[in-house]
Amino acid sequence: MTAEIITIGDEILIGQIIDSNSAWISEQLNLIGVNVRQKSSVGDDKNHIINALDEASKRAQLIFITGGLGPTKDDITKSTLCEYFNTKLVFNEDIYKDVEGFFVIRKLPMLESNRMQAEVSENCEVIRNFKGTAPGMWFEKNGVQYISMPGVPFEMKAMMEDSILPLIKLRFKLPFILHRTILTHGLGESFLAQRIEEWENNLPNNLRLAYLPSPEHVRLRMSIYGDDEIQLQKALDEQEAKLKTYLSKEIYGFEKQTLEEVVGNLLKVNKATVSTAESCTGGNISHLLTSVSGSSEYYKGSVIAYSNEVKTNVLQVKLNDIESHGVVSEEVVIQMAEGVRKLMQTDYAIATSGIAGPNGGTNEKPVGTTWIAIAGKKKTWTKKFVYANDRNINIQRASYSALDSLRRILLDYI
Amino acid sequence: MTAEIITIGDEILIGQIIDSNSAWISEQLNLIGVNVRQKSSVGDDKNHIINALDEASKRAQLIFITGGLGPTKDDITKSTLCEYFNTKLVFNEDIYKDVEGFFVIRKLPMLESNRMQAEVSENCEVIRNFKGTAPGMWFEKNGVQYISMPGVPFEMKAMMEDSILPLIKLRFKLPFILHRTILTHGLGESFLAQRIEEWENNLPNNLRLAYLPSPEHVRLRMSIYGDDEIQLQKALDEQEAKLKTYLSKEIYGFEKQTLEEVVGNLLKVNKATVSTAESCTGGNISHLLTSVSGSSEYYKGSVIAYSNEVKTNVLQVKLNDIESHGVVSEEVVIQMAEGVRKLMQTDYAIATSGIAGPNGGTNEKPVGTTWIAIAGKKKTWTKKFVYANDRNINIQRASYSALDSLRRILLDYI
Repeated sequence: MTAEIITIGDEILIGQIIDSNSAWISEQLNLIGVNVRQKSSVGDDKNHIINALDEASKRAQLIFITGGLGPTKDDITKSTLCEYFNTKLVFNEDIYKDVEGFFVIRKLPMLESNRMQAEVSENCEVIRNFKGTAPGMWFEKNGVQYISMPGVPFEMKAMMEDSILPLIKLRFKLPFILHRTILTHGLGESFLAQRIEEWENNLPNNLRLAYLPSPEHVRLRMSIYGDDEIQLQKALDEQEAKLKTYLSKEIYGFEKQTLEEVVGNLLKVNKATVSTAESCTGGNISHLLTSVSGSSEYYKGSVIAYSNEVKTNVLQVKLNDIESHGVVSEEVVIQMAEGVRKLMQTDYAIATSGIAGPNGGTNEKPVGTTWIAIAGKKKTWTKKFVYANDRNINIQRASYSALDSLRRILLDYI
Repeated sequence: MTAEIITIGDEILIGQIIDSNSAWISEQLNLIGVNVRQKSSVGDDKNHIINALDEASKRAQLIFITGGLGPTKDDITKSTLCEYFNTKLVFNEDIYKDVEGFFVIRKLPMLESNRMQAEVSENCEVIRNFKGTAPGMWFEKNGVQYISMPGVPFEMKAMMEDSILPLIKLRFKLPFILHRTILTHGLGESFLAQRIEEWENNLPNNLRLAYLPSPEHVRLRMSIYGDDEIQLQKALDEQEAKLKTYLSKEIYGFEKQTLEEVVGNLLKVNKATVSTAESCTGGNISHLLTSVSGSSEYYKGSVIAYSNEVKTNVLQVKLNDIESHGVVSEEVVIQMAEGVRKLMQTDYAIATSGIAGPNGGTNEKPVGTTWIAIAGKKKTWTKKFVYANDRNINIQRASYSALDSLRRILLDYI
């Protein structure tokens, strides 16, 4: 089955935003065995949209359309689709209730323009939007499916996951593909490839491997093709078991787990609590830990100690050590971890001190130099990392290295 | 003058990479007054590439093509272009010297596949690549210009900046397009549209307006077309001045500024410092503030007070008030802000307490209920916000609302 994606919006054509929606949609479609043949981006212009629909319909059976469904005047996708499918907008009571509910929950007044969000094309299947006010619309014409979704990424993603992907799997016969994603931390892409070379060279022919690296981790995705689900599942289990012998400590999870969730679960299992004392990561570790629902069970709090006075006054770091070893040093990061552990009365404490950049580096301590400490009941573990030049990537890398260090300690790996 | 962009590569269609090249090319073209009408992405497939070229050539005078120029077997753009323009590859001595130089400088051996990089189409204008080994090629057919570039972003960007953009400006008469992006916080898209309706209805015909909303802000982008740069600049200035009378307090910045940068600059100008006491935002405000390089000048630190004990022990919130008013209450958030301001000895302090969700809501205090306080030298300001159901969006919204509240206080708006 072949799909095309059409993203609509002047902001894409003038380069003001990078179209990440179409990459995400492509990935999801590939996972269910739908092949994306072409992506097109056009502006908020009726004739350009119609032309793109015409061309795509000659090549694909499934056409995904994002953007241009908002309540403002520049959003013309809805009226254009009506013209294209020779139909008209009608007021939909059910969708109106969704839109109304959206405002009632937020205790916001509703405007006439919001009311118009409940107008949908007369001859489409309406897809509800649980995250926003613009509903999706699914049209069919000459055997081609056209699915219009909002351009706001989290609204589009929820609509795809909750409604559209399940409907596609239900309605169309797709080839059988199973995927398994293995999450690793601690080895860069090329070192990982070197470590698992033998395993990779012996993979069966119907199994494809992809490396997906980011500052958080390197994901390994196995995709296996065939007819017999049980056999495929068994083959994936076998390969996973073999892979684990090469990466016994690096694998932290599977599929869509996050490192912060895995660490949270380990803390729960150990009935342990955690706090953080952050300098270079500036609250990002705390932000990651608390982005997990239910984190209040194990996360108690943090001191973000950006200035030296906060380090000395609140965390009881010795001024003497800051002066003699520098603020980015093993001595200081140990005292930060132990200081916050005592202050917050937690079982474990994470501390970071580093030079996030782009300024502040020296020959001895270049930008990217970062000390991480984890204080526990019995001892405090430390390690120095040296990242690169990008401030925000350094903050991310240091945060995930710290979380992975705590994971390894909780599992008695270090 | 109208352009189209065709990006080539299977990795784009399976969603493994996000195509950022086309956004960058669009932005550069818009800045010189070239209008991008459509972008298309196709795989490494001869027929698909030829089809995309055919379609684009009916609509545009300038066609930019990226990707598929590498030395490996899956790269077929060069042979496909030769077939399309009915020509053949020839060995180019000058380009060979460039390729050779590339390996000599890096002290790397040259492979036969690298030598083939010096083969270019017989009837094109060759564009040198100073950052890599794949040269660019500029074709002309029936008055349409086709420009093929490598897909590696920094090679493509250097080629555009050093050769292609200057050549386009030299060879074609271009109109002027000017853009101005105005950043607002505090009004949702539809409320903003209502507020500025009168202004929007009276915009000149050659000016287009776009609304670009996100949890951080709503951006308003004006695009104006014409010949006389000075006149256009004046028209944008005029409209911006008029718009400011409708949105005197909501506009916080322009173009690519972020709210955290704007707040940081205001703190610098006021020689003021800030700290945060975060419950529901869990360190995200601190993370945003410290993501700005140089933030140590005004940001001193934070207490992330997730548990009640941290609120009472570290921030000196009265247990009595937590018990009688609840932890998500005006009373508690005031004490958090004043507590951290005292502890960190800062001029201002931001505090948040809310129910990020998805659990923990009640009838009286549904998920999304958030109290924000800003403590200053003389008084403490508070406000209650009610967001929606998505935990991570609630954290983002609360963080940006808090930053915007501090901005308004620093500007004496509230």
